[in-house]
Amino acid sequence: MLHVHAVILAGGSGTRFWPASRRHTPKQLLPLAGRPDEPLIAATVRRIEPLVPLDRVWISTGTSLVDATLAALPGVSPAHVIAEPVARNTAPCIGWASATIARSDPEAIVAVLPADHFIGDERAFRAALSTAVRAAEQGWITTIGIVPTRPETGYGYIEVGEPVAEGARKVTRFIEKPTRERAEALLAAGTYLWNGGMFFFRASVMKSAITEHLPALAAGLDRIDEAAAGGDEARVLGEVFPTLPSISIDHGVMEKAKRIAVVPGDFGWNDVGSWQVTWEMSEKDAAGNSLPAGTVAVDARDNLVRDLTTSARKAPKRWALVGVSDLVIVETDDAILVVPRERAQDVRVVVDALAKRGETGRI
Amino acid sequence: MLHVHAVILAGGSGTRFWPASRRHTPKQLLPLAGRPDEPLIAATVRRIEPLVPLDRVWISTGTSLVDATLAALPGVSPAHVIAEPVARNTAPCIGWASATIARSDPEAIVAVLPADHFIGDERAFRAALSTAVRAAEQGWITTIGIVPTRPETGYGYIEVGEPVAEGARKVTRFIEKPTRERAEALLAAGTYLWNGGMFFFRASVMKSAITEHLPALAAGLDRIDEAAAGGDEARVLGEVFPTLPSISIDHGVMEKAKRIAVVPGDFGWNDVGSWQVTWEMSEKDAAGNSLPAGTVAVDARDNLVRDLTTSARKAPKRWALVGVSDLVIVETDDAILVVPRERAQDVRVVVDALAKRGETGRI
Repeated sequence: MLHVHAVILAGGSGTRFWPASRRHTPKQLLPLAGRPDEPLIAATVRRIEPLVPLDRVWISTGTSLVDATLAALPGVSPAHVIAEPVARNTAPCIGWASATIARSDPEAIVAVLPADHFIGDERAFRAALSTAVRAAEQGWITTIGIVPTRPETGYGYIEVGEPVAEGARKVTRFIEKPTRERAEALLAAGTYLWNGGMFFFRASVMKSAITEHLPALAAGLDRIDEAAAGGDEARVLGEVFPTLPSISIDHGVMEKAKRIAVVPGDFGWNDVGSWQVTWEMSEKDAAGNSLPAGTVAVDARDNLVRDLTTSARKAPKRWALVGVSDLVIVETDDAILVVPRERAQDVRVVVDALAKRGETGRI
Repeated sequence: MLHVHAVILAGGSGTRFWPASRRHTPKQLLPLAGRPDEPLIAATVRRIEPLVPLDRVWISTGTSLVDATLAALPGVSPAHVIAEPVARNTAPCIGWASATIARSDPEAIVAVLPADHFIGDERAFRAALSTAVRAAEQGWITTIGIVPTRPETGYGYIEVGEPVAEGARKVTRFIEKPTRERAEALLAAGTYLWNGGMFFFRASVMKSAITEHLPALAAGLDRIDEAAAGGDEARVLGEVFPTLPSISIDHGVMEKAKRIAVVPGDFGWNDVGSWQVTWEMSEKDAAGNSLPAGTVAVDARDNLVRDLTTSARKAPKRWALVGVSDLVIVETDDAILVVPRERAQDVRVVVDALAKRGETGRI
């Protein structure tokens, strides 16, 4: 897979993992699932390494996150960080990354992967990725569709059509996040997959698709590309990028282009959406708790405690939980959160409250 | 009240306020009720000051607590600290304190007061104390009986008899901690008071009572007293004190002596028995929470949070509580406790667990 390049989408700035996640330490830079010391983005890069070596890995992120991102990825070259001056959604981001890669490798096949997902069965994931790359080689813009396991209303769905390449089928329709009732029908039908936000394409095919469906974006990307070829990228980027249309690759390209394929994937995928998910995927004691080492737990069940403090101490802090169940408790150096697991999504209200107070240092 | 001396019993080493209370920082040295920056023992001394000035205040404590106790009581002279080499219950403690005071003031009337109680109405408390002192002047060993407000099973009760002095009545019986059923009957009867552990007596009367009812204790105290008069107290104390009978003043004297009186007291007394009590007596927000300043609380009700950390930080830690109710959360530099309010008494199991592990630094 000599011409396969990976673009890791690492621009996230989620608030659902406050107080661990912050503007300058978003979710993908934290070890929120899987190995306890491996940030999600490091796992993302590691798991594709057998197929895409580090010198063909590119990181798309915001300028403010470049240093922290490189710190989490020791093997990635700073020259491979594609830093957006402002966020303009995924179509400009992916279009620019694809054009950048094509300058040095016109034959490039690009695999776009979110930085902040968890994958349980990495071998199965790589098999799906290989299949998607082969479909992309044949000119299909290909996505991996996750085999759904529940009537989830938080994801988009993909309707699967006829086979078009080995292991790949035509996408006949993209469906926005459904209602609960609709989601149950989609799950029951058995011909729908979740949109996992992974895309595979020839750089040349993506360029043509953007030219056809998003001509304003294509024109802007051309200006940046010409400047980059002439060694003047930074100036033009700052001028042009903020003017690009802010649109997702899904709405801008996938829903409009004709040759869109999907490869079904069933490999323990999880988008790590909240502390609840961290608890679900943690190793737990016999009472269902995931706790710091040494915690005294008495009549305590199904709790998640994460001590992310870094201050030097003589001895680690001793946690003691007596008679509490189903709580998430997360402590950092400057904040501590206590919330029931089932309300873990409500963490954003805390971030909103802090923003309203002007406590921007804590969000 | 020229000859009235106060002996503050400050030997406690309770575990019910872990992680705030420790072997070397027991409950009375912490601001667990009342003014947020006043340790319970400092409040105890302050509230009697209009009646008993600092130069007639004596502190009975263990040798290991002397420094911390003096630090909490800036106005008390180190010469007024009566430091027990080992704890031998209240009879030896009170007997020795009384003898010590009598050496310099043979006319002394001694008021023995626990260091770790809360009193809401200090004026009413001082009135009761004055009444008890007057009964003591007339030769009665007097206690203040707390007017009960609930069928409490955690306290001893006092049966009240005929009037014997102004505002004082004879004690006809002491009753051990009752069953629930018995406690309800005692409350309904209206002639029983709680034993609040406060005692008032002439030093000479206590000496006679101990001589009559606890002759072995009297003999030991005489040896210490003679040595003290001769300037050799320390050596003899270390030799004799550990051999004194370990018995409470209640069992050893109060239940046996004939002239025992009680003054009813109704002044918002509380023995500050657990974090639950701290919550009850804290200022609370509209949702019943007592929280550190600046806490973000969303759908959070009736919680107690105490941040007792002392480590230097750039900014105070921000607490965030979402959707949790009736919790006690207490953080110190080296420990953090989470427990439902109604199980606050179970904190001792944590201390037991830490002791079993040998983590004596944290208890």
